[in-house]
Amino acid sequence: MPRFRLDIEYDGSQFAGWQHQADQPSVQQAIEQAIEKFCGEGLRIRAAGRTDAGVHATAQVAHVDLAKAWSGDKVRDAVNAHLQATGARVAILKAAVVADDFDARFSATGRHYLYRILNRRAPPALEKGKVWWVPKRLDAEAMHEAAKVLLGKHDFTTFRSTQCQAESPVRTLDRLDVGRDGDFIEVRTSARSFLHNQVRSMVGSLRRVGDGSWGAADLRAALEARDRAACGQVAPPDGLFLVGVDYPEDV
Amino acid sequence: MPRFRLDIEYDGSQFAGWQHQADQPSVQQAIEQAIEKFCGEGLRIRAAGRTDAGVHATAQVAHVDLAKAWSGDKVRDAVNAHLQATGARVAILKAAVVADDFDARFSATGRHYLYRILNRRAPPALEKGKVWWVPKRLDAEAMHEAAKVLLGKHDFTTFRSTQCQAESPVRTLDRLDVGRDGDFIEVRTSARSFLHNQVRSMVGSLRRVGDGSWGAADLRAALEARDRAACGQVAPPDGLFLVGVDYPEDV
Repeated sequence: MPRFRLDIEYDGSQFAGWQHQADQPSVQQAIEQAIEKFCGEGLRIRAAGRTDAGVHATAQVAHVDLAKAWSGDKVRDAVNAHLQATGARVAILKAAVVADDFDARFSATGRHYLYRILNRRAPPALEKGKVWWVPKRLDAEAMHEAAKVLLGKHDFTTFRSTQCQAESPVRTLDRLDVGRDGDFIEVRTSARSFLHNQVRSMVGSLRRVGDGSWGAADLRAALEARDRAACGQVAPPDGLFLVGVDYPEDV
Repeated sequence: MPRFRLDIEYDGSQFAGWQHQADQPSVQQAIEQAIEKFCGEGLRIRAAGRTDAGVHATAQVAHVDLAKAWSGDKVRDAVNAHLQATGARVAILKAAVVADDFDARFSATGRHYLYRILNRRAPPALEKGKVWWVPKRLDAEAMHEAAKVLLGKHDFTTFRSTQCQAESPVRTLDRLDVGRDGDFIEVRTSARSFLHNQVRSMVGSLRRVGDGSWGAADLRAALEARDRAACGQVAPPDGLFLVGVDYPEDV
């Protein structure tokens, strides 16, 4: 059975998250049902990042094994046609046959997220559901400077959901950049992997730095507390986008 | 009665257009109702561009006369609060007192539109309703070159809705630029004023150039025909955004 890699874009607003949930719409289920309508196979797909309810993706990656060696273009177009028929805001950007040992989740060597804050007095109209609206003026430069505290290898217990199932709270953060683009503040972050709610937890604490209620030292103290209670408000899912997944070239 | 200028952003997807319509939601009505809830006045606002159903704005401009000299910030925040309570995807970006002779429609000396095409095989997921999806590869450079045919002063009867109420079909097109940004093709156009459906009609014909079925000479022939039947498919409203309105500095 040939294995296919799927590159996927979705609007998370209408889903309870990537992963299957009883009686709630998931991105995974939408795609699995579309594949089933296309080739009649009931199957499971696995993704690089199990995004939460309301979280979006421009470049999620998943893999699936199909019985026939369809062309990638055929798989992409057919699955998209079935997705569109249901009104699901999910699109397969690319489908391609990959090596049998490619695993979207376990082969991934890096994950990249973008978090968008709309920082203006007026609420979002065009970008509703795709930004975190923070009316109070934020200092993006101060956020960027303080963010350096979190770079590198740390115990991220403070920035981890109490429901996180990872064995270790230690992760290595490779990138955490904050920049302003007009009324938008963009937070870009990369790591081999993230803990559950880690990005939204870090962004929520960085917001405190941005509005002046925290300094970089407070952010460091929060990290070193290794205590979930030390975390700032967890940022809402609306502003979060999975924008890239890395794989070794030889996979 | 002080006159206020309102700068407005909206997602046109949920509206039958800017202008009041019986039994259908309009942007104008949403804002008028929000103002009425705020200051108890039943009134009418007038906008620079009466956008059609499904057309968006990042920078619509309107004016309204209120009984009291509220501060601009108070008007903006109060009207936005009432708009948000209704779930309308409309936001007042700015409100400011202006001269009594400022007229959002008749004082305007320039209007700027952006039209976005998503040019890839996969349908839009994140940008659904905010782009025209054209799966067939388009040549943006050929579109840009051909667009020069339409620049300047012309009889735009070909590119005008049969329902257009303007007295003259003659307009002067100051800008019509086409460029590619990844999978997106952006058409930017400016004029003192446009005819009804003019931008969407021009974009629909430019698309024919982009996919190779028309050359620049065909576009010129369509213009010179001064015949609505010579127009290419009218592009859908989804991709159209009113992005700027100019006023003389002294207004």
